[in-house]
Amino acid sequence: MPSPELSTMLVVLDLVGIFVFSVTGALVAVRKHLDLFAATVLAGVTGLGGGFIRDVLIGATPPAALADWRYLLVPATAGLLTFVFHPTVGRLERVVTLFDAFGLALFCVTGALKAVDYGLGPLPAALMGMVTGIGGGVIRDVLAGRVPVIFEGVLYATPALAGAAVAVVLDRADLSLLVVAAAGFGTCLGWRLLALVRGWQAPMPRGPANV
Amino acid sequence: MPSPELSTMLVVLDLVGIFVFSVTGALVAVRKHLDLFAATVLAGVTGLGGGFIRDVLIGATPPAALADWRYLLVPATAGLLTFVFHPTVGRLERVVTLFDAFGLALFCVTGALKAVDYGLGPLPAALMGMVTGIGGGVIRDVLAGRVPVIFEGVLYATPALAGAAVAVVLDRADLSLLVVAAAGFGTCLGWRLLALVRGWQAPMPRGPANV
Amino acid sequence: MPSPELSTMLVVLDLVGIFVFSVTGALVAVRKHLDLFAATVLAGVTGLGGGFIRDVLIGATPPAALADWRYLLVPATAGLLTFVFHPTVGRLERVVTLFDAFGLALFCVTGALKAVDYGLGPLPAALMGMVTGIGGGVIRDVLAGRVPVIFEGVLYATPALAGAAVAVVLDRADLSLLVVAAAGFGTCLGWRLLALVRGWQAPMPRGPANV
Repeated sequence: MPSPELSTMLVVLDLVGIFVFSVTGALVAVRKHLDLFAATVLAGVTGLGGGFIRDVLIGATPPAALADWRYLLVPATAGLLTFVFHPTVGRLERVVTLFDAFGLALFCVTGALKAVDYGLGPLPAALMGMVTGIGGGVIRDVLAGRVPVIFEGVLYATPALAGAAVAVVLDRADLSLLVVAAAGFGTCLGWRLLALVRGWQAPMPRGPANV
Repeated sequence: MPSPELSTMLVVLDLVGIFVFSVTGALVAVRKHLDLFAATVLAGVTGLGGGFIRDVLIGATPPAALADWRYLLVPATAGLLTFVFHPTVGRLERVVTLFDAFGLALFCVTGALKAVDYGLGPLPAALMGMVTGIGGGVIRDVLAGRVPVIFEGVLYATPALAGAAVAVVLDRADLSLLVVAAAGFGTCLGWRLLALVRGWQAPMPRGPANV
Repeated sequence: MPSPELSTMLVVLDLVGIFVFSVTGALVAVRKHLDLFAATVLAGVTGLGGGFIRDVLIGATPPAALADWRYLLVPATAGLLTFVFHPTVGRLERVVTLFDAFGLALFCVTGALKAVDYGLGPLPAALMGMVTGIGGGVIRDVLAGRVPVIFEGVLYATPALAGAAVAVVLDRADLSLLVVAAAGFGTCLGWRLLALVRGWQAPMPRGPANV
C-alpha cells in the first residue's frame, strides 16, 4: 500500500505527464491550422488515449480518466493554453520534447504495473506499458491525417518497451514499488534522452522503397 | 420508467438518427469513388460508431446495436439506398445536413444520459454524450482518409457538448426525463442550426500556419 | 468439447493465420519505408487487430492474445523476418496473398463462433466474424496513412461475411463443430480465391466521382 504522500505524488506526476502530452497534441492541431475544438480534442486524446486503449483492452472500464474530473480538466487546459500562446509554445519545442520524454517514461511504467495488477503476464504487461506511453501520440497523428511519427525512424517506442519490461521483471522480484518504478522510469528516460542527444534512429529497411 | 409509447418513440427516433448519420457515411464513400462494401461499412460506422466508442469506454458491452438486429439493418439499408441513388441524395445535401443536426442533438442527449446511468460523473458523462454524437463521423473521416471535418472550423462538436451538459445538469435536478431530454436536445439543435444558417465557425489559430 | 488433437490443430491454424496476416502488415511498413518498429507494430495490429476489436466489442477482455505469449511472439517474429528478408518476401507476393485468403477464411469462422459463444444473435455474430477477418487490415492501412484496400473494389470482406454467416447458421442446426467450421471456411476461401483468379470486384458507384 503506498503511503498518502506517495499516492499524492503519483497523481501529480501523472497529471504533469498528461499535461505535456496534451501540449504536443494541441501543437499538432495548431500547425495543421485546425480549430480550437480540434486543439482541445487532440490534446485530450494525446494525453489520455494511451491509457484509454490499455484500460479498454485489460477490461478496466470505465478508464480512470472518466472517473476523476481532474484528468479531463488538465488536457482541456493544456489545449486551450497551447492554442492561445502557440507561437511561444512552438519556440519552446525543445522543452516540450524533454518533458514529453518524462511523460513517456512515467506512463510506460504505470501502464505496465496496472496491467500486471489486472492479471496479465509479463510480456503482455510490458506491451501494455508501451501502448500506454505511445498510444495517445498514435491516435493524435491518425486524427491529424499523418503517419504516426513513431513509425518514421524516431527512437521513441523502444525505450518505452524497455522501461516497461524492466518494471515488470523487477516487480516479480518482490522489490519495493519505488525501486521498481524508478528503475523502469530511468531505463526509458535515459534511453530516450540519449537517442535525442545522439540522434539515434530505429533501423530503416535496406534497399530502395517500394521494392 | 418511460411509458411503452415513449419507449417506442425513443427507439424510432434513435433509428431515424442512425439512418441519417449512415447516409452521410455512404455519401463520403461514393464521393471518394469507393465500392459498395465501403459505402455500407462507412454507413455503419458513422451511424453506430459513436455509440460503440461510448459503450466500450463505459463498459456497456456488447453495445446495444449488437443485441438488436434492427440497429444493424438500418445502416445497411441506408448505405445501399445511398449507393444506388447517390446523385439524388447528393442533391438533397441540405436536407441531409438538417436531419444530421437532428441526429446529433438526439445522440448527445441519449449518450450522456446512458453514461450517467452507468455511474459516470457529470463532466465525463457530458463528454460521453458529445462522443456519442461526433464519434461516428470521426471514424468515417479517418477510414475515408481525410482529416475529420469537425476539426476544420465547422461548429458541430460544441453544440453537442452543450446539449449533453444541459441534459446532465438538469438530470441531477430531478426533473422529468422528457423535460431533461427536450432541453438538451433543443440546446444542441438550436445552436447547430444557428451555426449553419449564420455560418458560425469555431475559432481558428492566430497567425500563419506552421509557426 | 473438442478433442485435444483438434484443440492443438486449431491453435496451430490460428497461429499460422496470424503469421500470414502479420507478414502483410510488415510488408506495408517496408514499402512505405517505415522503420523496424513500425514493421513490428503493423505486423502485430494486422495479425491481432481484428480479434482485439471483436473481443473489446463482445466484452471478452483481456483479448486471448494478451493471455498467451505465443500470440505476441508470432507477429513479432513475422515482422522481424519480413523486415530483414523483404525483397524475397515481396517477390512471394502471390504466395502471401494465397495464405492471406486462408487466414481470412479461418478468422471469419472462429470470430463468428466466439461471438455466438458470448451470446450474440446470428446477424451480429456474423458481422463480428467479418470484423475479425478484416479488422486487422483496416487498422494496418489507417496507421500506414492509406485508405483501407478493402474499400477500393477488392472482393475481400464479402467472402468473410458469407463464410461467417454460413458458420453461424449451421451452428444453430446442431451439426458437429468440424462440419460447421469447414463449411464456413470453405465458403469464404472458395469465394475469395475465385475473386482473385477471375479478378472479380465489388460494385463501384455509377457515374463520375465527386457528384
